Amino acid sequence: MRIAIDAMGGDHAPHEIIKGVNKALSAFPDITFMVVGDQEKIQPLIQTSDRVEVIHTTEVITSDDEPVRAVRRKKDASMVVAANLVKEGKADACISAGNTGALMAAGLFVVGRIKGIERPALAPTFPTVDGKGFLMLDVGANADAKPEHIYQYALMGSIYAKEVRQIENPRVGLLNIGTEEQKGNELTKAAFDLLKDAPINFVGNVESRDLLEGVADVVVTDGFTGNMTLKTIEGTALSIFKMLKTSLMSSTKTKIGALLLKNEFMSLKGKMDYSEYGGAGLFGLNAPVIKAHGSSDETAVFHAIRQTREMVTKDIPSIIKKEIDQLGNE
Amino acid sequence: MRIAIDAMGGDHAPHEIIKGVNKALSAFPDITFMVVGDQEKIQPLIQTSDRVEVIHTTEVITSDDEPVRAVRRKKDASMVVAANLVKEGKADACISAGNTGALMAAGLFVVGRIKGIERPALAPTFPTVDGKGFLMLDVGANADAKPEHIYQYALMGSIYAKEVRQIENPRVGLLNIGTEEQKGNELTKAAFDLLKDAPINFVGNVESRDLLEGVADVVVTDGFTGNMTLKTIEGTALSIFKMLKTSLMSSTKTKIGALLLKNEFMSLKGKMDYSEYGGAGLFGLNAPVIKAHGSSDETAVFHAIRQTREMVTKDIPSIIKKEIDQLGNE
Repeated sequence: MRIAIDAMGGDHAPHEIIKGVNKALSAFPDITFMVVGDQEKIQPLIQTSDRVEVIHTTEVITSDDEPVRAVRRKKDASMVVAANLVKEGKADACISAGNTGALMAAGLFVVGRIKGIERPALAPTFPTVDGKGFLMLDVGANADAKPEHIYQYALMGSIYAKEVRQIENPRVGLLNIGTEEQKGNELTKAAFDLLKDAPINFVGNVESRDLLEGVADVVVTDGFTGNMTLKTIEGTALSIFKMLKTSLMSSTKTKIGALLLKNEFMSLKGKMDYSEYGGAGLFGLNAPVIKAHGSSDETAVFHAIRQTREMVTKDIPSIIKKEIDQLGNE
Repeated sequence: MRIAIDAMGGDHAPHEIIKGVNKALSAFPDITFMVVGDQEKIQPLIQTSDRVEVIHTTEVITSDDEPVRAVRRKKDASMVVAANLVKEGKADACISAGNTGALMAAGLFVVGRIKGIERPALAPTFPTVDGKGFLMLDVGANADAKPEHIYQYALMGSIYAKEVRQIENPRVGLLNIGTEEQKGNELTKAAFDLLKDAPINFVGNVESRDLLEGVADVVVTDGFTGNMTLKTIEGTALSIFKMLKTSLMSSTKTKIGALLLKNEFMSLKGKMDYSEYGGAGLFGLNAPVIKAHGSSDETAVFHAIRQTREMVTKDIPSIIKKEIDQLGNE
């Protein structure tokens, strides 16, 4: 298979991106990489291999760029070129750690939606206490959603959990402010009614306070709420670790205590780190488009590649297309 | 002033409720308490004082009761009786640690809305890293909100922050998934437009990941999003503390480390505890109605009473009414 990767996107580009590619070159002999970006910067870093093709471009979409405008105007930006390789059939999938909004726009306008899917969804995997993780979608591809969109998110998430994460009969929950059926706002009430009859293992409403305990394998919600929840989890964890760090450095006694617990703190931070689950997939597009975290290092890039490879091998877009077609014909 | 308190609501009722009342009786000589509940259980616990009146009732609304139905049918429940004392002018305010939905229903149907306020809002104060805390509303009095409701939440929150929390020119932020003006869903975009021209210190959009860092003094949002955010913060903090506890008990070395850091862990947990900020006020009603946390102990009840006393002293409902009237006449 051929994977296009934006070498210039993310906080640690191109170094960590290329390191991740090098690691994947050894681990996955079935992947040929189309590495898009500044050749002068990429060439000294990348492993020599006949499974690497560097596509030179110096234009880059930055985190400050307005997404839709950037994708439309910066035709030669590394991210846009990578998406075009997918559109033209030269690559089977693409990955970028750059501007999330721009990658969503490139996915939608360049790679294109699966016919029958009304809205693509951004779907990262979150950590859980038991280390299994859960998929949440949408976390911001579309701020507003209709009940029918949430229904499609549930179908797509369930397919991904089953095929890529190999969870048998994945539990799909609707993110809500109470577990009872009649709880929530107008949107969740209407979505609940649709999900009850969906061809998935719908486990009902799930509450955000139970998410990290692994209450479901797939959690569906509108993009505004999903994005809010994602940022609240991140922000709360960061604030707690920050307070912890400050208080542990306050005296000699606490410093000794902190030293004794160093490994435990590291392992706890590791548990809250979702880079090993791969990047966030943009579901509902004609080919896999993966958003690696902006702060991705070698390991995170490697896992995003591993995940992309799975999505290509299992041909997730075709499975989604088939399921949508079937439901449409019922 | 006269405060009615539901002695039977909450996980530790009536013991901790009465302990909190006893503490407040000593601290605040200007309060007379109307303690509503089972006299046989209350009498042995409560301090003898001519500033205490026990109003006997054995009916109770439980956490399993459907809120609106419970308030309508259980006319003699301690919570409903307390709300009626306010309605009849026999008490200036009421407090309950019982069923949140039921207290909101009792507030709305018994105590009643201020004329001109379209929706009441539930407004707790959250902890921040710097210990100052911030007010958030609505966290669930109404799952759905219109932009005009969020505008009123901002007015009410700003008044409370100024008068009760004595913050000069309180910073009011709109909870959103990005800080830029054009970010968000249809609701937040429309609310932003209204808030720009509100007679408050509107600081624009704030993100949930910055909440605990104290990015605003008052944060406004619809009840669904507010409730979701509240539960996400609680759930994330609990999950982290749980993981921390498990890993600290894993070996002798870590147990020694944990022992050395005991005070720091306790102080960190204390920082995340919002009982000292008082209960959650139901804003927009004709009199202060305060929801103390369901797990309230003596201290939390005491602080809820202290907060209620402030709201009565400053006559917050009248200030809100005046502001709403003025805006209506402009």
